[in-house]
Amino acid sequence: MKLDHVGIAVANLSRALARWQPLLGTPTGPPEEVPSNRVRVLFLSAGGSEVELVEPLGADSPVAKFLERRGEGVHHLAFRVPDVDAALAELIARGERVVDTKSRPGARGHRVGFAHPTAFGGVLVEYVEGA
Amino acid sequence: MKLDHVGIAVANLSRALARWQPLLGTPTGPPEEVPSNRVRVLFLSAGGSEVELVEPLGADSPVAKFLERRGEGVHHLAFRVPDVDAALAELIARGERVVDTKSRPGARGHRVGFAHPTAFGGVLVEYVEGA
Repeated sequence: MKLDHVGIAVANLSRALARWQPLLGTPTGPPEEVPSNRVRVLFLSAGGSEVELVEPLGADSPVAKFLERRGEGVHHLAFRVPDVDAALAELIARGERVVDTKSRPGARGHRVGFAHPTAFGGVLVEYVEGA
Repeated sequence: MKLDHVGIAVANLSRALARWQPLLGTPTGPPEEVPSNRVRVLFLSAGGSEVELVEPLGADSPVAKFLERRGEGVHHLAFRVPDVDAALAELIARGERVVDTKSRPGARGHRVGFAHPTAFGGVLVEYVEGA
């Protein structure tokens, strides 16, 4: 499966962009709010994959909790799958834990769903629907 | 710059492979020892980028220290640059910290060099030389 993007938890989008722009250039679009996850995100192109900078929208965002616990850093890896609901169901059938039992709307108009970090040895994996 | 690979620190290559193979398929080659970093690695194809599973070769490996402190999870992001020594020199000139002041031999026959996590807001970035 294709690595769609790497999500990086950041306290502040503008300050993070200043760090990454020398390496990756300008973002692929303006900041986007993802209400289902209480975050505001920016994507930077990195060859076939992208880097997503993820800023929490409030203290109740899961990313705010991540920042409190771990500080800024890689938050998740996102892989393209043809059918997010099927991919989540397959994990559940294998006895793995998931954050989302069903897909939901994510950034850039894609349906998404998160596995639980225990399913991939400590790595939070997001499935992103697409070819 | 192209995201070359995502490095994931794992305690045991075989057990980690069993977790990732259902998503990413068989490794691109046999396990490779990287003496300069005291690790043994496996690469799995993920579209344009790859996932590198990184197992420490001994307690003195930097990855063993990472596992002790943080547990298994994403260890570094590697980006392709035309000249690793130039990329490291540019970071140093901007006042950023680096792990390697000069490039050294890495996996798959490439020269590599690591920035310090403070240079990219908590993310350990590796430069990999190549087009």
